[in-house]
Amino acid sequence: MIPIISIVGKSDSGKTTLIEKIVPELIRRGYRVTTVKHDLHGFEIDKEGKDSWRHKQAGAHGVIISSPQKVALIRDVDKDMSLEELRESFGGDADLIVSEGFKKDVQPKIEVFRKEVHGELLCTKENNLVAIASNRRFDIGVPCLDLDDIKGIVDIIESRFLKGNKPEEVTLRINGRRIPLSPFVKRLLIRTIMGMISSLKGAENPRRLEIKID
Amino acid sequence: MIPIISIVGKSDSGKTTLIEKIVPELIRRGYRVTTVKHDLHGFEIDKEGKDSWRHKQAGAHGVIISSPQKVALIRDVDKDMSLEELRESFGGDADLIVSEGFKKDVQPKIEVFRKEVHGELLCTKENNLVAIASNRRFDIGVPCLDLDDIKGIVDIIESRFLKGNKPEEVTLRINGRRIPLSPFVKRLLIRTIMGMISSLKGAENPRRLEIKID
Repeated sequence: MIPIISIVGKSDSGKTTLIEKIVPELIRRGYRVTTVKHDLHGFEIDKEGKDSWRHKQAGAHGVIISSPQKVALIRDVDKDMSLEELRESFGGDADLIVSEGFKKDVQPKIEVFRKEVHGELLCTKENNLVAIASNRRFDIGVPCLDLDDIKGIVDIIESRFLKGNKPEEVTLRINGRRIPLSPFVKRLLIRTIMGMISSLKGAENPRRLEIKID
Repeated sequence: MIPIISIVGKSDSGKTTLIEKIVPELIRRGYRVTTVKHDLHGFEIDKEGKDSWRHKQAGAHGVIISSPQKVALIRDVDKDMSLEELRESFGGDADLIVSEGFKKDVQPKIEVFRKEVHGELLCTKENNLVAIASNRRFDIGVPCLDLDDIKGIVDIIESRFLKGNKPEEVTLRINGRRIPLSPFVKRLLIRTIMGMISSLKGAENPRRLEIKID
């Protein structure tokens, strides 16, 4: 499962700026990072009049633009997706997802706090807060690092989410819809599938496995 | 497997215009359509200065923008992807992929031809051409429909790709890399997994199945 860390904070606290600093440090350490920006108000991204824009206007559910350097996908959804749902559908081959916003989501969070801008924290330890990045000290039982201590902040992300032992997780989707699984069925699926593929060439060290039948 | 049909044709033949007409007819018949636009020259899609644009500039491999109505994803790739690879990574929950361009890809094609613009066809039956949409007649062994016969063109797409019996296909990816499978292993995986999940609630009519273990 790709780990997720949310950078949260009140407006104008410096979330994007912190992400701009931690992403290069994560890349320097060899990780592939996908970021997520929450945009509650909707957004316009493609350029009016372009062929792909015309496809979407014609009613396409999704539009993919493919070039040799990058691929873009714009897809309709019927509700605001959780970070877990976004990871499942769009996480791809990333090692880590860093999201901006999503303060109400259950995923682990780092709060950005600048004393010039706000008086109180947004999160507590109960909101799955794992660290605070701030220019003042807080003593609420989670590490509090200086806003400029990028190395220290990335150390926490790395030790908590990238180097630990992650529990195995299994997801089953049928006709695109996720099917709830009991712990027994999860173990049955994991062990049977892992057993079947264990002798295949290229399957020596399966950290992440995906099977599609269609 | 989500079927793919490519709308091909020389420049200015009317590919986008045809797609603008067939997509609404496919939707009217109940299908969910994702389109693909091939852009060999690269593209700029996000707006300079936006938070998501800043994430990408900072080096993120992928950026997801999530709203309650739609989700956009921009991801780096290291080569021009085939339609099959795009389907695997970005096809999602579509019933059909309609691509524009990709004339060199192996997928089935409909060629758009306007006699005012060009003198010769781009494709032959050997290029997996399944129909021609044109304002002149061709007799090369594939159906030739009038450019405005949208119902007829969609009839061909529907009967060839949406209502036929598709062979079951299985894809296995480990750590993001596709593992080649022999026909024996494919059958073993399909039958074992289908057997295991057959009694789960919600798994009654599995047309498309996806399992992730991570």
